[in-house]
Amino acid sequence: MVIVISKHATEHEIKNIVLRLEDEGFKIHRSDGEQRTIIGAIGVKPNFDTRKIKILDGVADVYRITAPFKLASRSFKEDNSTIVLKDTVIGGNKISMIAGPCAIESEKQIFHLAKIVAEAGVKILRGGAFKPRSSPYSFQGLGIDGLKLIRKAADAYGLHVITEVLQINQIDEVCKYADIIQLGARNMQNFALLKEVGKVNKPVMLKRGLSATIEEWLMSAEYILSNGNKNVFLCERGIRTFETYTRNTFDLSAIPVVHEKSHLPVFADPSHAVGLRDKVPPMARAAVAAGADGLMIEIHNEPEKALSDGPQALLPEQFSTLMEELKLIASAIGRSF
Amino acid sequence: MVIVISKHATEHEIKNIVLRLEDEGFKIHRSDGEQRTIIGAIGVKPNFDTRKIKILDGVADVYRITAPFKLASRSFKEDNSTIVLKDTVIGGNKISMIAGPCAIESEKQIFHLAKIVAEAGVKILRGGAFKPRSSPYSFQGLGIDGLKLIRKAADAYGLHVITEVLQINQIDEVCKYADIIQLGARNMQNFALLKEVGKVNKPVMLKRGLSATIEEWLMSAEYILSNGNKNVFLCERGIRTFETYTRNTFDLSAIPVVHEKSHLPVFADPSHAVGLRDKVPPMARAAVAAGADGLMIEIHNEPEKALSDGPQALLPEQFSTLMEELKLIASAIGRSF
Amino acid sequence: MVIVISKHATEHEIKNIVLRLEDEGFKIHRSDGEQRTIIGAIGVKPNFDTRKIKILDGVADVYRITAPFKLASRSFKEDNSTIVLKDTVIGGNKISMIAGPCAIESEKQIFHLAKIVAEAGVKILRGGAFKPRSSPYSFQGLGIDGLKLIRKAADAYGLHVITEVLQINQIDEVCKYADIIQLGARNMQNFALLKEVGKVNKPVMLKRGLSATIEEWLMSAEYILSNGNKNVFLCERGIRTFETYTRNTFDLSAIPVVHEKSHLPVFADPSHAVGLRDKVPPMARAAVAAGADGLMIEIHNEPEKALSDGPQALLPEQFSTLMEELKLIASAIGRSF
Amino acid sequence: MVIVISKHATEHEIKNIVLRLEDEGFKIHRSDGEQRTIIGAIGVKPNFDTRKIKILDGVADVYRITAPFKLASRSFKEDNSTIVLKDTVIGGNKISMIAGPCAIESEKQIFHLAKIVAEAGVKILRGGAFKPRSSPYSFQGLGIDGLKLIRKAADAYGLHVITEVLQINQIDEVCKYADIIQLGARNMQNFALLKEVGKVNKPVMLKRGLSATIEEWLMSAEYILSNGNKNVFLCERGIRTFETYTRNTFDLSAIPVVHEKSHLPVFADPSHAVGLRDKVPPMARAAVAAGADGLMIEIHNEPEKALSDGPQALLPEQFSTLMEELKLIASAIGRSF
Repeated sequence: MVIVISKHATEHEIKNIVLRLEDEGFKIHRSDGEQRTIIGAIGVKPNFDTRKIKILDGVADVYRITAPFKLASRSFKEDNSTIVLKDTVIGGNKISMIAGPCAIESEKQIFHLAKIVAEAGVKILRGGAFKPRSSPYSFQGLGIDGLKLIRKAADAYGLHVITEVLQINQIDEVCKYADIIQLGARNMQNFALLKEVGKVNKPVMLKRGLSATIEEWLMSAEYILSNGNKNVFLCERGIRTFETYTRNTFDLSAIPVVHEKSHLPVFADPSHAVGLRDKVPPMARAAVAAGADGLMIEIHNEPEKALSDGPQALLPEQFSTLMEELKLIASAIGRSF
Repeated sequence: MVIVISKHATEHEIKNIVLRLEDEGFKIHRSDGEQRTIIGAIGVKPNFDTRKIKILDGVADVYRITAPFKLASRSFKEDNSTIVLKDTVIGGNKISMIAGPCAIESEKQIFHLAKIVAEAGVKILRGGAFKPRSSPYSFQGLGIDGLKLIRKAADAYGLHVITEVLQINQIDEVCKYADIIQLGARNMQNFALLKEVGKVNKPVMLKRGLSATIEEWLMSAEYILSNGNKNVFLCERGIRTFETYTRNTFDLSAIPVVHEKSHLPVFADPSHAVGLRDKVPPMARAAVAAGADGLMIEIHNEPEKALSDGPQALLPEQFSTLMEELKLIASAIGRSF
Repeated sequence: MVIVISKHATEHEIKNIVLRLEDEGFKIHRSDGEQRTIIGAIGVKPNFDTRKIKILDGVADVYRITAPFKLASRSFKEDNSTIVLKDTVIGGNKISMIAGPCAIESEKQIFHLAKIVAEAGVKILRGGAFKPRSSPYSFQGLGIDGLKLIRKAADAYGLHVITEVLQINQIDEVCKYADIIQLGARNMQNFALLKEVGKVNKPVMLKRGLSATIEEWLMSAEYILSNGNKNVFLCERGIRTFETYTRNTFDLSAIPVVHEKSHLPVFADPSHAVGLRDKVPPMARAAVAAGADGLMIEIHNEPEKALSDGPQALLPEQFSTLMEELKLIASAIGRSF
Repeated sequence: MVIVISKHATEHEIKNIVLRLEDEGFKIHRSDGEQRTIIGAIGVKPNFDTRKIKILDGVADVYRITAPFKLASRSFKEDNSTIVLKDTVIGGNKISMIAGPCAIESEKQIFHLAKIVAEAGVKILRGGAFKPRSSPYSFQGLGIDGLKLIRKAADAYGLHVITEVLQINQIDEVCKYADIIQLGARNMQNFALLKEVGKVNKPVMLKRGLSATIEEWLMSAEYILSNGNKNVFLCERGIRTFETYTRNTFDLSAIPVVHEKSHLPVFADPSHAVGLRDKVPPMARAAVAAGADGLMIEIHNEPEKALSDGPQALLPEQFSTLMEELKLIASAIGRSF
């Protein structure tokens, strides 16, 4: 932490600031320039609230010089993390694809879509059993019945299952049926839930919150990592801005930024980011070109009858075409699916 | 819902759209103009996803004509709702004040602050026992011990208690000790939690999410109301924007907007909105002038030693001065504390 | 400027950084801690692009320790600036009111409104002759004819005139007829225009850009000040956010922030900030309570026939009522109109 | 325009609304449903302010059903527009590249970079002679001398020149030396300037404003088109959001959206969007994959000495490598450079 002393600060005020810093456990380097005194405070804890120093008399400004997260940072672990599932690896040079419906709706639907997903060479099937809906009157998901259906469908086609958990008391059930736990955008700062999924022995995909900075996102990953679960990967799904034409603004720059700041794999979800079917393929291509380690895409065989988010789901044939394009783009940047 | 048919739509496409709308349970009014056909679809459910119609061939645009919330709306209940506590009323012409520390830290601290709060004529004491912190390494609150302390302090000085609940399994404990349940900004769309607090017999203060529209905020209130709990009031606490000087951007315009769209009381929390002590008094004054039904303000006797958010807490004497100013402003607009 | 050296930097890299800083004209203070080396670089010019240092090998992070503006800063001039017009002063303890129509539309209209404005005790009449409209098909203002009309009306009622200038070649004409030049939100970073109004001998009101940070706003004021014109005051008029119910989000916290960082007076324009008539009075009251040095309010006697922004204009009788309320609020905080 | 009448409106109010609409020149279709009356108003002018109707008694809501722009819209012109320069075409299946320094700094610099640009197969050289800088103390460009230098360098290597114009009185000079006029983000709503470049006989590249919606951006294009200049193309360069790690948030979804709503070509500028050199290549690749019709990229041979925006400029060898990658991605989606 660097503390810039204000021009008019008295020596008494500076001494007070130093005392306060030492009380907080910092080691101090004081540097008196002609115009300004600067204090370096070494040993800052990741949770230190710099405003505590900022409000002291004689302080002009305070800057952190270390990131507030540790286990998630590239400086803690230099090489890329990977997560090994039975027959596939998340992270590394290969790009992963997750596909499936927004919500599990029926046995027929999920089996039908699992087949399409498997035939396209995809290894991970998505489908929501517990749905976070902004209206209390919307379809809230099939619950445990949905979990059983997606497990059955995935097993029939040799797929892994990813599904969302909304609250702590669902974790045990979800772990019985799923291979990967999804934490949704609205729960990115549900700290109680983050702690609990940090204790389970399943990989976790952590979506970025609607208005979360990249730093806050990595802080939320830190909650999971610091509770013991090292198998975390991230997923960019659009942030909220003033633009209303698209559902959200897909922040693809977050992908190279995460790769610089963290060792964790980062996916992209163009379906939620743009919210309209015909914009999904170009943005999926863009995500791969930007360096995403994986994609999550919603598909539906009858999107006009889907109980949730049908308008953003790709049709099976659109999905197959997209997969071919994505493979070409991956190979253009030296990667593959 | 109003569906605007595109200029080049065929009669076959229009019929298809009408059929689809009837399938969804709508009554149809078709109006053929010289240049455009417009379809009015009556009977739209609050949860209807208009994108379902928007993606049909021949549709140019779709507009909801009813708000997606019902029980929270001014058109459902025309007069202002009030919430009666033993000796005070939330909502109505009187403005309420909630004050206390960010977090309950010790018996000495909470008793000291409860005394100050009571002496200032305030009826409701705040204090967090479970703290949502963006870092896993930050102080997370005293938990149930904190709940017991704030109850004791409140009883000693004849105060009501408001405290935050972070997860479902804390609700029972919090209800034992608190008079009002607070749902924080990060939980505004924790739908599982909203449903559960909708079933308890305690008033709920619902804070606006960091990037929640006013409509989404009222939808979240609808979750609580539709589960049976009618004693809901709202609290604006700043939204996230590009401006970095203040912690958040205090959206005071939300106050007259909520008053137009809803019958629920709406409070304002300048402490979290601006995040720096010296900006709290002007913004507290502004909130009263804008018509807020109440304020929530953080105070601390030793803010430099506070375990959470000390830099935004007012000192006791600042708080007393502010209360006097606020009374004058309230009286200027025909209200009182 | 403070440069934090990265943990793994070599001594060679550090020397290189120091050389580069000296080349740029900085004086260097190097402080070697046990874990980190920190370099203080003194003498940073306000326009220095810190990214130049950030990209050097061995640099972990770079922080400015001085604001990028100077003449506009509170540290350059400690006491509040005031601008003296013949019979009124902008800034200082008195709050100023500017009122009038969005656009000058006819002699009858502007005389009628000037009379209302003068009768309410207001000293400054607003009205646009050159209108910045987002559509090329919208009314673009009466131009020079409008300037002549507002001057005549103002003279008839003893008022000062403020009007907007959109381009450099309008400045001379506007200066003939106006007492104060307005620079609109869309021109806040029209640097060519800023420089030119910096050379004229008339006060300038600089509105905040739709997505300008407070720092950028003060930088734009710096353009005017550094070209010689010291009579600058600011006007907050709402920023762009994700919230769509109001036209903009009125950032009233900017008022105490500007007062801390700058000596320039700061006004507020609730009419443009919220964009709907019935929300203007509460937000005008809030602006005064937050400490604004003045307000700018749009009025119209026949808003339903106004050629521009009628829906946000107050009716004359609403304006009179509001003035009474504002006087009470001003007096509650020790100020007056 | 569709007007939804409120439930409690009286017949007298409805008649009033109809009269008012007819006064404004609309043809009326009234549709009385059981619960709601809906009025279709046909013939809405692109500049009509719908708030004029929204504030009438008895109106619940008002919706435009036509875009506020016309000449820029896909419905006005169904096939993609192209702009023919001597030996290259902007728009169409081929992707264009614009490259060069942020600012023209010296004859040596611009000749050196022109050579690199030409050798990479690029046809259009960029370089600023008039620089819009947020600080009055920053390098403001070489002005007309700069224009002469870039023209000379471009001629030496057979290149077209694009350069920015900041104010009306620069247009004539810029037209003497440049082949394409650039309008920068800060001038996107400088309507006076838009009108004037609408009258010149040179193609115009219109950058998106920092906080402009796609609709506003197309409205600004409409200003140019409606003044007679049909050779307009757009350039996405990042929007302002709460995320601070990148300079702006690159809104690549805008590319497919513009392609749907408009016939105008749309470019992308990853250099300004992200602001840091190492993030430029992935985002350039993403822009091509998303369907951009062209890119604009900043390069510099000595970025550490650049007078403006050096930290975001690619080195010549980075640029060559990137060009190779981009060609592969273009071919993956059936396009070429």
